[in-house]
This record gives sequence, structure tokens and C-alpha cells, in this order.
Amino acid sequence: MTDQTKFTLAEDRIPTHWVNLLPDLPGEPLPPLNPGTMEPAGPDDLTPIFPMELIGQEVSMEPEVEIPEAVREVYRLWRPTPLYRARRLEQALDTPAHIYYKYEGVSPAGSHKPNSAVAQAYANKEAGIERLATETGAGQWGSALALACSLFGLECVVYMVGASYDQKPYRRAMMESWGATVIRSPSDTTEAGRSQAEHATGSLGIAISEAVEVAAGQAGTNYALGSVLNHVCLHQTVIGQETMAQMEMAGEEPDVVVGCVGGGSNFAGMSFPYLRRVLRGEAKTRFVAAEPAACPTLTRGAYRYDFGDTVGLTPLMPMYTLGHDFVPPPVHAGGLRYHGDSPIISGLVKHGLMEARAYRQNETFEAAVRFARTEAILPAPEPSHAIRAVMDEAEDAKQAGEQRVILFNLCGHGHFDMSAYDAYLAGKLEDPEFSEADMDAALERLPDTPAIA
Amino acid sequence: MTDQTKFTLAEDRIPTHWVNLLPDLPGEPLPPLNPGTMEPAGPDDLTPIFPMELIGQEVSMEPEVEIPEAVREVYRLWRPTPLYRARRLEQALDTPAHIYYKYEGVSPAGSHKPNSAVAQAYANKEAGIERLATETGAGQWGSALALACSLFGLECVVYMVGASYDQKPYRRAMMESWGATVIRSPSDTTEAGRSQAEHATGSLGIAISEAVEVAAGQAGTNYALGSVLNHVCLHQTVIGQETMAQMEMAGEEPDVVVGCVGGGSNFAGMSFPYLRRVLRGEAKTRFVAAEPAACPTLTRGAYRYDFGDTVGLTPLMPMYTLGHDFVPPPVHAGGLRYHGDSPIISGLVKHGLMEARAYRQNETFEAAVRFARTEAILPAPEPSHAIRAVMDEAEDAKQAGEQRVILFNLCGHGHFDMSAYDAYLAGKLEDPEFSEADMDAALERLPDTPAIA
Repeated sequence: MTDQTKFTLAEDRIPTHWVNLLPDLPGEPLPPLNPGTMEPAGPDDLTPIFPMELIGQEVSMEPEVEIPEAVREVYRLWRPTPLYRARRLEQALDTPAHIYYKYEGVSPAGSHKPNSAVAQAYANKEAGIERLATETGAGQWGSALALACSLFGLECVVYMVGASYDQKPYRRAMMESWGATVIRSPSDTTEAGRSQAEHATGSLGIAISEAVEVAAGQAGTNYALGSVLNHVCLHQTVIGQETMAQMEMAGEEPDVVVGCVGGGSNFAGMSFPYLRRVLRGEAKTRFVAAEPAACPTLTRGAYRYDFGDTVGLTPLMPMYTLGHDFVPPPVHAGGLRYHGDSPIISGLVKHGLMEARAYRQNETFEAAVRFARTEAILPAPEPSHAIRAVMDEAEDAKQAGEQRVILFNLCGHGHFDMSAYDAYLAGKLEDPEFSEADMDAALERLPDTPAIA
Repeated sequence: MTDQTKFTLAEDRIPTHWVNLLPDLPGEPLPPLNPGTMEPAGPDDLTPIFPMELIGQEVSMEPEVEIPEAVREVYRLWRPTPLYRARRLEQALDTPAHIYYKYEGVSPAGSHKPNSAVAQAYANKEAGIERLATETGAGQWGSALALACSLFGLECVVYMVGASYDQKPYRRAMMESWGATVIRSPSDTTEAGRSQAEHATGSLGIAISEAVEVAAGQAGTNYALGSVLNHVCLHQTVIGQETMAQMEMAGEEPDVVVGCVGGGSNFAGMSFPYLRRVLRGEAKTRFVAAEPAACPTLTRGAYRYDFGDTVGLTPLMPMYTLGHDFVPPPVHAGGLRYHGDSPIISGLVKHGLMEARAYRQNETFEAAVRFARTEAILPAPEPSHAIRAVMDEAEDAKQAGEQRVILFNLCGHGHFDMSAYDAYLAGKLEDPEFSEADMDAALERLPDTPAIA
């Protein structure tokens, strides 16, 4: 224990390896399936859009994967990120709990996303690729990849969900400032886009279809995904590793680790290094995943094989899903509006190693404003879901009279989400509900996929 | 020399004192004047709007002023801030120069401004004040004071320049998220505002008049200024002190220190600790102040006594001025659109201890984009003036074949200025010129003030 508030590490403490949870998971990993044959998808299914280095990371059974020096060199621009003890928030909540948060909003793109964007851009550059195509919703991932491509001299094209493109011109300008080309999705530049033209406001699933189509069809162009896949979760584990060193400086061990989950990479990054300890019997830690009640993949989705995109261009993945053409209500936490989830995170929830909770939009903004007025940082709507869950844990600790240690990742700032804060403060923020009927209809449109044991 | 890129300090290295340059300056400080009597303004002229603690700091001749522990406690939320070696920018410029930058954009409000806002809010809280009134242009200072008031439980009212209020609703939402009341200026809530109603887009000078009027007229309400005054420059010296420790880690001494100057507090904060060394004969360092060509106070203004606000409610201050009712063209660097300048900075320029240069808006954005594509951080328009000057110094060093060490303060990020980047990238950014005729007319409207020796 110390009286410190902020725990910083020198840059030589940036991790040298990423933590791969795959070999420690119980049972054999469920493979993705080729939708045509329903057989396990192999490298050949992925080489048209990913470089071999990343395909290797996707299926690696090594417990640690070395981080290339060129990637660590870029990480040094903002890593290690700080860990804070939320003393002012604890006081405001009048809780005996100790609350710690890692702050990834200090990255130039404003979130944890560059941790993977830089690794992906570098692997593609090394493979001789000249251009990356991707999609973005709220803009966090698109910004991160635009930045990474700019640093490695790659071209970058971003398909931006139509509604966000219209509402968030500043996110678009940010990507363009780093040299990316930003296209409103659905667009007429792809077959997938033209086939979905009637959905004028777009969706993440449609934008993924467009970017994958471009990558698969053009030589020298690859695709980059900002979450869900194993290699993306892998890259994010720099977060949890640094946090472990910082919690050691604080002299505490977390009793519970909390994170928001959309595709899962943020929570994977923080939790996997801690989860490995639990899986190896070295620690007892609880894990709580927070998601929007408007897109409750982990709490109300079906656990089965589904596509990662709307049109059906990706392999089938074993995960919790609301159906690949389910369009979630337009909550401001755009990074959490995804029909599916990381197969690893899904498996952990399925096997009871991780708990999931869903929160309504207004209660997350209430938590965000309370956090801002005590801890000063304005959180993005996504981690505000985690903050809401943290406050519940802190209240629970108070009721139980426990000095519980709560840890979460504040994965981004809200500087590009002020219109949402504005609406909340004016009492005009919508609080949309999830439509089970819509999900049921979406699930019926799934291909006839094998049941998961 | 080291191969490090980022130099961080632990939180116990936050300075314990502010550096006061006043006692080291040559000659007697020029006093502010009461505009009615033209006699030196005393504490009585200031007590209606400032607490005694800050008035004491304003005129202190002690070389160091202790930082209250409660202020350092808040500083710990983001301080010490990082220092970077701009290796990627050096490479892109192909210069033998070594470029270092301190990054103050990591503060929750996104700039250096909270360094003084926190100190001012605390001093007022201790004096039993319940509410602070202030003005803001682009929003950096208003955000900082809103944050500081939120942390110390003070009410905060911000008069926001009309044009910015209309163009920057997200800055307003940020201040409101921290609990501040934001009023469009000119407003009908003050005499000053009503008298300037015809200037519908407002100006910083008008907004200052409104805030000063409110503070002077209401018990329990004080005024807070975000730059210009001695005590504001004083508070910012935490920047330069931390930088000195970090440059020591880097094993280098700056040959030239560069900063943007509006009211002067940013450059004061970085340069005063270094200037003291020069004034004491302990170092030879050059200092370069960068300002907008559209508001060229230091390079083309008159050195004389003038009001700090438009209506004429403040004492007269000895400084470079374009005339207190001069309205600068609407460049995006709102923080540099001020008719006057810090009396200390003005004196340093007058006496040749500091050099001043003016840059056009488009060349500063060109520098900003080049910086973003190499160093990753998107700079605010204000420090982009410093970056432009740094690039000139680096080119000059290349021509001279010198391994010059260049240091500057990247005082804020550009997350709330993306519309300006958007306009620049689209080739639609205006490049307004300074009107000497307007300035001459404004200077003719000055009161009959004594000449400055």
C-alpha cells in the first residue's frame, strides 16, 4: 500500500511479449468454419486478406508471442500508459473498495485500439502489402489504423458506417489528417455495399463486408479487423501486463477485473494476463464484462456459429451472437454495437469463467458524468459501461463491508462523443431497448450451422 | 545521451514550488495603473475580483512560491506530463537537430490551462468564494476552470465568445459535463454585454468585460483569468521545471526554447525556469515566441499601457498591444487571438531576451499535419505555431550543419479543432491578414497613457 494516485512505468517496461491465452484454455479451441464446406477454415481461407504472420498468431499455441522491435518502437510514443487509483471517486461513493483504472485514452487516437493497429500495420508492411482496408463505426478503430498506416507508410481506406459518417465529421477529419481515405458505407464502390443500399445509415456488419470484399479482390490490399479475432486480443495484452507491474507498485491484487465488451479486444487485453493466473490455479479473480442492454450479445445472444459480417464473406465463428444481420439500436457506444463477440471471450462466459452484465444507455452516462466530476477524465461511452459496473461493485462492497479491490480499463476518452454528453445533460438522450423479436428473426436467417457442445 | 523516446517522472517529482521570474528581471517591474488616476494600481483595485492570495502572488518578489499540497494533489491526476524526443519528425526533416517536446495535452481538459485553473480555484475556495466567473474563446481556458471548479466544489460561469459558442458546441458540452454554466457573449446578463450587442459574434475582450463585471458586482463571486497576469505565468512554471529534470534524463541542454504566445502563460511556463538561468548568467539559451500573423501582438503591436478588456474595466497594463478593442481576424488558434500580452513576456521581447516571429494560418496547419503524420499526436492550432517555428529552426540547423537542441511545449491537442483540419485538408482554410489600419484606429481610441521608457 502507498499513498500514490498515479503509477507510471519507464518506457523500458513496455512488454516484450504478448500473452496468448489459447494454450491455457480448457479443451481444444473451436475452429472457425468454412461456410461452404462447414469444415474447419485453414490458412487458405484467410491468406487472401491477412498476412501469414497474423494468421500464425491467430492459431498459435505458444503461451507468449514476441513483439517485434519496430512495434515496440511505436508503442513508445504513448506506452506504458498510466494506472490510477480513483481516490476521489472512492470518496464520492463512500465505499471501502479500492478502485484502480488503467487509462488507454492517452494514445494519440484516444483509445486502446492502436495497440493492435500498429502490430497489424507492421505485419502487413513486412509482408509487402501496400494498402489496408477496414471498417469503423464510432471511429476509434478507423482512427487507430489510419495512424498506424501513416507511421509505416501504408495506404489506408476506411469504410465508415453511414450514420457515424454523417454524425461524426470530426472523426473522419482525424482519419484524413493521418492520410486515410474515408468512404461512407454502404457505398457504391463494392458489390456488398450496392447490395445493401437500402440500409442507408449502414451498420458495422455491412462496412466489414465492404472492406473484406476490397481486400479479397485487390492485389496488394489486405484487411484489418479491430477486435473479435484471437490475434487482435493477443496484441491488446500489453494493457494487462503493464497493469500487473503497476498493481505491484500499488501493493494490491485485484479481486475483480471489469471491462466493457463489444468485440472483446479491450477486455481481453486487460483480463487475459490475469485469467492465465486463474486458469493455472495461481489466483482467484472475478471477471465482469459490461455490455449495452441495447446490444446484449453475451447476456442474451445465442452461442453458436455465425458470420462476422452482414453479407457472409467471413468464416463462421463460434461465439455469442444476435445474428449477423441484426442491426442494434443506435446507442452512442458505437464500439459496442456488434452482433457477435470474440470466440475466446464467448467461451469464457459460456464456461462461467467470466460474468456478463448489460446496462442501459442513460445509466452509463450518469456514471460517466459522476466519474468526470471526480476523476476529471471524460470517458468514452464504451468504458462508461465498465464504470457503471464498477460503481455497482463498489456499492456491493460497501454493503458487505469489504475492502474489495476493483480494477478496470478506461479504454478511451469521450472527446469525440460530446454530442452524446450534451443530449444526456439536456435530458434528451434516448434509452433504446433490445428487440428479442428482431434477434429471433436474425437467428432464423443463419446458415444451418453445427451445434456447439 | 540515451536512445529513449519518452521521458517520464514519478509523481513525487511534481514540483513543490512555482518559479517567480520577477525578482530576477532587470530594473523595477512596471506597475499596472488605475485608469482613473493613472497611479499604480494597488491591492484595493484588485480585491473586488481576486483573492488576496493571488494578489500576493501577482506582486511577489520571492524567487519561489510554495505550491499548496491540495493543488499538487490535483496535479497528480495528470502530472508530471511526458517529455518526448521527436525522433520521427527529425528523420522526416532530415535534420541534425535534436527536437524535444513537452506534452501538456494529457491533462483532462486537453491543455496546460488546468495548471493555473486548479491553483486559482483552490485559492478562491480557501478565501470563502463560492463562484468563479471567466471568459473563454476557443474553450481551453473555460474547460480548465470548469474542471477545477468541479474538483473543489465551486460554481463556475463561463462567458464564451459568441462565434466559438456557435461553432464549438462540443467545447460547451465539455464545460457543462464538468458542471459549469456557459453563456454566449455578448449576453444580456451584463451591462458590458448589452453595450456591445452590435458585435454579435463577440470577442475575447468583450467576454472578459462581462466576466469582470459579474465578479465585481456580486458578493461571493470572483474572476479568474487564464493568461497574461504574473500569477498565471507563475502557476505554469511547473512545465519548465519538470522539463529541466527530463532534459537531464535525456542528457541534453536546449539551445533554443520555442513556444506559441497568445496571452503568454504557456510560453512563460516553459521558458521562465530556463530564463532565470540565463538572467543569472548560468546558461546561454535562445527563446523564440511564435504568434499568428493575423494577430501579431509581439511583432507589430505598440509597447504601451492598455486595458486587458474591451470595455475598459481592468487596470492598465504595460504590454505590447494592438488596441483593446481591436478584433483579430477569426483564425482557428482562438487562444492566440488576444490584443495584448503578458507584461513580463512583453518586457522580455522589448529588451531583446526573447525573439518573436509571426506565422500565417495555412503554414501552421501544414506543420501540424506533418507533425501528426510523424509524431502521431494531433496538435491544437495554437502550438502548431510553435511547431512551424521549430521546423524553421531545424532547417536552419541543417543549413548550418549544427546539432542544435530545440525544445518546445506542445501545450494542447487538437481534438476540438478538427473542423479546422478538415478545412485545411480540403484546401478551404482561410489565411487572413492583419489590418494595420484597424490597429492604428484601435490605438487612437486608447486613453492618454504615459509612455513606457
